[in-house]
Amino acid sequence: MSDCVFCRIVDGTSPAAVVRRWPDAVAIVPLGPVVDGHVLVIPAAHVRDALERPEVTAATVARAAEIAPHPCNLIANVGAAATQSVMHLHWHIAPRTQGDGLALPWHSDASDRHGQPAVK
Amino acid sequence: MSDCVFCRIVDGTSPAAVVRRWPDAVAIVPLGPVVDGHVLVIPAAHVRDALERPEVTAATVARAAEIAPHPCNLIANVGAAATQSVMHLHWHIAPRTQGDGLALPWHSDASDRHGQPAVK
Repeated sequence: MSDCVFCRIVDGTSPAAVVRRWPDAVAIVPLGPVVDGHVLVIPAAHVRDALERPEVTAATVARAAEIAPHPCNLIANVGAAATQSVMHLHWHIAPRTQGDGLALPWHSDASDRHGQPAVK
Repeated sequence: MSDCVFCRIVDGTSPAAVVRRWPDAVAIVPLGPVVDGHVLVIPAAHVRDALERPEVTAATVARAAEIAPHPCNLIANVGAAATQSVMHLHWHIAPRTQGDGLALPWHSDASDRHGQPAVK
């Protein structure tokens, strides 16, 4: 889609800081990285978001996992209310370091521990 | 692994608020949901994190995409410094609503817009 900036990056008609190219995806540095090493992994196919074509979502995150450092967050935002602003699926790779202060939408102590049903 | 709480949830020996079961994954409500509808999607296989076996990461996020609402965030935290506290891969589905105030690690205006290479 010519009106989609990520499609233009995929086909090379818009410039981008390309980190890696695969036949089905491209990894670029975002315009405003939130941490050093912040990368977006974008499928070559124009897919609106991570829910539209789960098989593309899956294949694209597998590409992200090939290049992502440990530790990191892998994030796909689906919809404007979830802070997606380019409506072409992209996976964020956000490298992390202990104590970097990058805010996440939850505290690990609260939501990542399990062993009994949630009581709401 | 008997010492992994997510493995015990998968095999039914630890209780959990199960949302959905597939042959290769299970979806549960976390102990401390950060938003209404917060769900974790956990592969049946004991895989440490999203980088260890990209094919499992991919298959599991495709399961998440089957049940995730629009809008939402799909997030995998890799490593303790990235707020992973259970060392068995799990995808967070965090449903979103406009203006819900849930903090993300970046502002959409800064990092989601593109069209030229990032200048750092």
